[in-house]
Amino acid sequence: MPDLTQLNELLNGVRSGDRMSLGRAITLIESRLDSHREIADHVLTACSEGNSESIRLGITGVPGVGKSTFIESLGLALIEKGHRVAVLAIDPSSSISGGSILGDKTRMEKLSASEQAFIRPSPSRGTLGGVAQNTRESILLLEAAGYDVILVETVGVGQSETAVHDLVDCLVLLLLPGAGDELQGMKRGIVELADLLVVNKADNDNVERARDASKEYKRALHLFPPRDSGWNPPVLQASALHDTGLSEVWESILVFREKHVEAGHWHARRQEQSVRWFYEAFSYELEKVFRTKEGAPEALAEAVEQVRSGSLPPVAAARDLLRRFLS
Amino acid sequence: MPDLTQLNELLNGVRSGDRMSLGRAITLIESRLDSHREIADHVLTACSEGNSESIRLGITGVPGVGKSTFIESLGLALIEKGHRVAVLAIDPSSSISGGSILGDKTRMEKLSASEQAFIRPSPSRGTLGGVAQNTRESILLLEAAGYDVILVETVGVGQSETAVHDLVDCLVLLLLPGAGDELQGMKRGIVELADLLVVNKADNDNVERARDASKEYKRALHLFPPRDSGWNPPVLQASALHDTGLSEVWESILVFREKHVEAGHWHARRQEQSVRWFYEAFSYELEKVFRTKEGAPEALAEAVEQVRSGSLPPVAAARDLLRRFLS
Repeated sequence: MPDLTQLNELLNGVRSGDRMSLGRAITLIESRLDSHREIADHVLTACSEGNSESIRLGITGVPGVGKSTFIESLGLALIEKGHRVAVLAIDPSSSISGGSILGDKTRMEKLSASEQAFIRPSPSRGTLGGVAQNTRESILLLEAAGYDVILVETVGVGQSETAVHDLVDCLVLLLLPGAGDELQGMKRGIVELADLLVVNKADNDNVERARDASKEYKRALHLFPPRDSGWNPPVLQASALHDTGLSEVWESILVFREKHVEAGHWHARRQEQSVRWFYEAFSYELEKVFRTKEGAPEALAEAVEQVRSGSLPPVAAARDLLRRFLS
Repeated sequence: MPDLTQLNELLNGVRSGDRMSLGRAITLIESRLDSHREIADHVLTACSEGNSESIRLGITGVPGVGKSTFIESLGLALIEKGHRVAVLAIDPSSSISGGSILGDKTRMEKLSASEQAFIRPSPSRGTLGGVAQNTRESILLLEAAGYDVILVETVGVGQSETAVHDLVDCLVLLLLPGAGDELQGMKRGIVELADLLVVNKADNDNVERARDASKEYKRALHLFPPRDSGWNPPVLQASALHDTGLSEVWESILVFREKHVEAGHWHARRQEQSVRWFYEAFSYELEKVFRTKEGAPEALAEAVEQVRSGSLPPVAAARDLLRRFLS
C-alpha cells in the first residue's frame, strides 16, 4: 500500500492540471518497478472515467509527410479556440534506435511554449504493446487534468497504426502530394483504418499535384466497402506551412464526432477499446505469473524453438508447459 | 496416461491412412473432454512433423461464388494426377446457425465417393479460434495419413479468412464475374491476403464480364504495395462447371510453390504459423488455469463489465484479478 498522503498529493496535482504532478504520474506509469506501478494503479483508478467530452485524435503518415508541423499548427489553432491540447507519441522504432519521435521538443517550439499544451515524447524503451498501454493510461490522466484534445502521433512503422487506431476516437492519415507513388508505398490496411485523409504540403509547386492526389485517393477509397458506421472518410488538402486547410480539417473532425455521437458509435468505440485493452493486459499479466515460476521462461523459449523446428506440435507443447509449471 | 495399446492402434491406423482411425482421431481433437484431448495430444505429437511436401490450400469467396463445385472439380483433377486430396472447412457461421458448410456431403458427391479423397465438415460448435485450431491439427493427421493436397474451404464471414490464411500455404480467392459490385461487397483486407485470384463461373453469358472483372481486379491489385516475397497475385478465370481454367489454376499454384520454396518463404511461413499458433494456445491454456480457480470466471466477467462501463481502468482491473486469484 503506497503512502496515502503522497498519493493524494499526486492525485490532486494531476486533477488540478499541475504539470509537475502530471509528469511524475506518467513516469510512474512508464516505470517497470512494481511499487511505482502500484501507485500508478491507484491514481489511474481515481481517474479512470477519462473525459467523455474530449477528442482523442490519432495522426499518422510516412516520415517526411509533416506530422510535427501539422500537429503544432493544429494545436496552436485549437488553443486559440479555447482548447487545452496534449500531444503524445507512439513510436515503435524508438525501442530499436533508442531515439524517439517528439523527443526533440524544439520540433514543436511554439506549441511546447504554450501554457495550454502538454507534450510528452514517446518512451524510448519497451515493446509496441507496452508503449501503447502507457499512452492509453497517459490519456486518462491528461483528460483528468483538463486536456480536452489529445493528439497521438505515430509513424507508419510496424503495427503502430493499428495500435493508435485502437486508442483514439478518430484517426487522421496525412499524405504527400504525388498520389501514385504514395499509394504504392503505403502500408497495407492503413487507408481502411483512417477516418480522415489529408493531403498535406498542398502548397507552392505542389498545389496541382495535391489536387490530383486527392482525386486519386477518393477513387481508391471507392474501392473499399462502406463502413459499418456509414462514414465516408473525406479527403482534404492542407498546408500546415501556410496554415491553410486546417480549419476544414477540424470542421471535418467535428462532423465526424457529431455523426458518431448521435449514432452511438463514439461511445461504443471507446467501450470496445477499453474491453480489448483489458483482455490484452489480462493476457500479459497471466503470462507474467507463468514467468515467475522457476525455469518457466527458459522452458517457454525452448518450447517455441521446438515448435518452430516442427519437432513439437503447438497445442500439445503449450498444454505441456502449463501442466509442468502451473498445475 | 491413455491405454498404450489403444493409442498405438489409433496411431498406426492414422498413419496407414485408415479412414475410420482418421475419423476417430479428428473426433478426439474436436472433443472437449480432457481425457480425449490427452489421447489426441499423443497422436498429434507422433504426427507433428506433418508433411513438408504437401500443399495446404485455402479456398475462400462469398456465398454463391461456387466454392464447392470448384473444390470438387479441382479435387477430382488432382486425384487423376495421382494426388490424395483432403477437404476441410472453417465455418464461423456454423456456431451460430448450427449448420455447417460441407455438412452436406452430397454437395461433393463424386469427390466424396473417391477412395483418394477425405472430406470432413466443419464442426458445428465452438469459436472461430477453436475451429481453426481443430482444423490445424486435422491437417497434421491428414498429412501423416498420406494426403498431400489439403483444401480448406471457408466462407467470407467474420475473421475466417485471416484464420484460414494463417494455416495454409496458399490462399485462393474465388470471385464472381461483374467486378464493380463485387469489389464493393468484398470484405476489407481479403484481397491483400489472397495469393491467387480466380474469377469463377467464367462460362456461358459470363465470359465477357469475367474478362472485364479480371482486368478490374488486376488494376485494383496494382494499388497495393508489393509483397515482401515479391509475389504478384495472378488473376485467372475458371469455370468449374465446364472444367476450364482449372489446370491453369493448378499451374499457378505450382509456380507459387516453386518460387516460395526457392526463396525459403514456404518453409518460413509454416514456421511462423506454428509459432503464432503456439502462442495462441499458450494464452488460451493460461486463461483456462485462471478459470479453474473458484469464483474466477465470475470475477472476470464482472471486471469486463466494469471496464466496459468505465468504472475501472483496464490494466488495474487485470492486475487486480491476477492478484486475487493467482498469487
